[in-house]
Amino acid sequence: MAIHDYFLMLFIVLLSARLFTELAVRLKTPPVIGELLAGVILGPSLLDWVEPVEGIKLLAEIGIIMLLFEVGLETDIKRLVETGLKSIIVASMGLSLPFVFAFSLAYWVFGLPLLVALFIGGTLTATSIGITLRVLTDLKRHDSTEGQIVLGAAVLDDILGVVLLALLYEFSIGGGINLLNAGKVLVSILIFFVLAPLAAKLISFIIKRLHTSSEVPGLIPSTIVSLMLFFAWLAHEVGAPELLGGFTAGLALSRRFYLPFGAFLAGESNFAHEIESQMKPIIRLFTPIFFVTVGLSLNLREIDWNSPFVWVFSSSMFLVAVAGKILSPLCIKGKWLQRFAIGLAMVPRGEIGLVFAELGRQSQIFTNEIYAGMVIVIALTTLLPPFVLKWFYAKFPMSL
Amino acid sequence: MAIHDYFLMLFIVLLSARLFTELAVRLKTPPVIGELLAGVILGPSLLDWVEPVEGIKLLAEIGIIMLLFEVGLETDIKRLVETGLKSIIVASMGLSLPFVFAFSLAYWVFGLPLLVALFIGGTLTATSIGITLRVLTDLKRHDSTEGQIVLGAAVLDDILGVVLLALLYEFSIGGGINLLNAGKVLVSILIFFVLAPLAAKLISFIIKRLHTSSEVPGLIPSTIVSLMLFFAWLAHEVGAPELLGGFTAGLALSRRFYLPFGAFLAGESNFAHEIESQMKPIIRLFTPIFFVTVGLSLNLREIDWNSPFVWVFSSSMFLVAVAGKILSPLCIKGKWLQRFAIGLAMVPRGEIGLVFAELGRQSQIFTNEIYAGMVIVIALTTLLPPFVLKWFYAKFPMSL
Repeated sequence: MAIHDYFLMLFIVLLSARLFTELAVRLKTPPVIGELLAGVILGPSLLDWVEPVEGIKLLAEIGIIMLLFEVGLETDIKRLVETGLKSIIVASMGLSLPFVFAFSLAYWVFGLPLLVALFIGGTLTATSIGITLRVLTDLKRHDSTEGQIVLGAAVLDDILGVVLLALLYEFSIGGGINLLNAGKVLVSILIFFVLAPLAAKLISFIIKRLHTSSEVPGLIPSTIVSLMLFFAWLAHEVGAPELLGGFTAGLALSRRFYLPFGAFLAGESNFAHEIESQMKPIIRLFTPIFFVTVGLSLNLREIDWNSPFVWVFSSSMFLVAVAGKILSPLCIKGKWLQRFAIGLAMVPRGEIGLVFAELGRQSQIFTNEIYAGMVIVIALTTLLPPFVLKWFYAKFPMSL
Repeated sequence: MAIHDYFLMLFIVLLSARLFTELAVRLKTPPVIGELLAGVILGPSLLDWVEPVEGIKLLAEIGIIMLLFEVGLETDIKRLVETGLKSIIVASMGLSLPFVFAFSLAYWVFGLPLLVALFIGGTLTATSIGITLRVLTDLKRHDSTEGQIVLGAAVLDDILGVVLLALLYEFSIGGGINLLNAGKVLVSILIFFVLAPLAAKLISFIIKRLHTSSEVPGLIPSTIVSLMLFFAWLAHEVGAPELLGGFTAGLALSRRFYLPFGAFLAGESNFAHEIESQMKPIIRLFTPIFFVTVGLSLNLREIDWNSPFVWVFSSSMFLVAVAGKILSPLCIKGKWLQRFAIGLAMVPRGEIGLVFAELGRQSQIFTNEIYAGMVIVIALTTLLPPFVLKWFYAKFPMSL
């Protein structure tokens, strides 16, 4: 595609994302809905003006990495560790319940073949970390206790979702399920998660030193974005989702990140503030492109709205998809309302679900009808929870 | 290319641009040299690690548009008009002298065919607005009188360079030279330059209104970048170089842009300040990618360094390329030193020169040897003037 065509496309994406966001806010709707809707309208579902071509996809992926970077930057690692056990429980429940529910429904009720049912289960496992965190950030709830639990759970969920995807993919191409490989991947991801923030922290000291001595403006944007991209690439290399690289980089630069040997460096907080103020405009530029792209990749036109199977299949799948996540915080201690909020926040499926569905279609495991049904379920789980969460927090503001 | 490969590539580009810039400054060398050198080292000339693939090119082009936006933002349109006549004289002299010199040398001295000589002339006409302005900005001289003259002349130069390119291209594919078409393009570019800043100004009022009422952060980055991209696209549509769209958008948002009917709006300057502080980190992130890409596209390995023809040809072409620009401010009034600085600043060739040379090679008008010679000339005119200008301003700081 010629560069000036890209300019027009990006112009349309950025401007409509902003217009629909402003509209959404005026209609008392979560801002992220505006961006998703802009994508649905511009994409194949309706106008078909914008295609998620290579350059747009690149900017979108940088956008989601930056969003996770920002979340990492504002994360208190001590609190994340404190809520860690709860996150692990929520993540494992939130992964297994929807998988078991959706698999059972597909295999026993709809009588679909084993592999199809496994892929359907896989599609509904992983929470969309991007949408969940964006909604919580919009509601200024990402810093609350339930926000921390959801953050930890969504990160784990994403990792396990990718491992599950790798397992099912191997299974589907006839290699059988190789648990040893999956275990290796899990171990290398764990090592990455322990070592990467330390490495990023050391790099950030170098950046800080350069920052005080550099005479050419622009050190922070270029080095911080490099750091993010490097960790995203590294995450991919060890088998983890790329966006978690951004999260790790953010975590390491966070104001509250202490090195384990207890060295706290005074004056850090000025530098952290400088990073935040310079990075915010960049993050705000890139993230909407990601959410518009999610909207672009939902092709609602592919759905045969007259097929009764699609309706029955998608509505029953939607119910188990929601129930599986809502029930996921059942085993942790806490107020009922807080646990309900956690469950709700875990409902959105997005990136990984769409990747699963797309893979299912491409490898002809999913028929067009099943694919369409799964796209409806992903769309509903993505579009509804922001409304419900907004309403929920408005209704019960004090009790949380 | 897979997204994670892009991440690695972008990481390498951003980081090495910064490292070489820091190194350049410590070696008392202009920062832009660091970025160009990073490109030469990473590119096919040496390591061949990074290719200017679609996504990188897109970011690079956004980078140069943003640089021009920043220049526009800091331009005083009144002064630009005041120095307008001088700029026109410098631009037309700086365009015709190198063309005539290089053409004559190629046609009469080297005895090359007419079309080849015309293309050689074309390759050496247009000043690289990006490199020239970057050097002046690095030296904090973009706001001086000679800076204003150079700015105006470089903008005109770029427009005329593109028109010349279109003419020669038509001629080379056997269509003859159609002056009527060229005239039409020139007129539509002129209309664009009169109307676009006014349109951009009106749009900026809307953005400003939204800015005061918007509740979702990120209005400025997304709307200002949209505006830039839209005007870049529009510039291309009327036949002007895309980067001038960015300049126009910046000009309209500049603190000193008054609407012609004399309406000056109080409070504007706060908004202009807000735009500057939010856009600067974004601009600083993108522009180095452009200069690295310029370095990437100079393939010094294609040059046969043992060919005596290449040496004689390129050094004599280099002499006329420099002389043509140095002599261009001869007909304007001013101090000798100031006129010399203007001429020097006009020396760098870049983007358009490389496009000419590439087109010449692809259409087999240039042999490999002539192409190599032209690449050497472009490289030298790009790499040497920053040093000379820096030295010059250090030597004669008071007299300007």
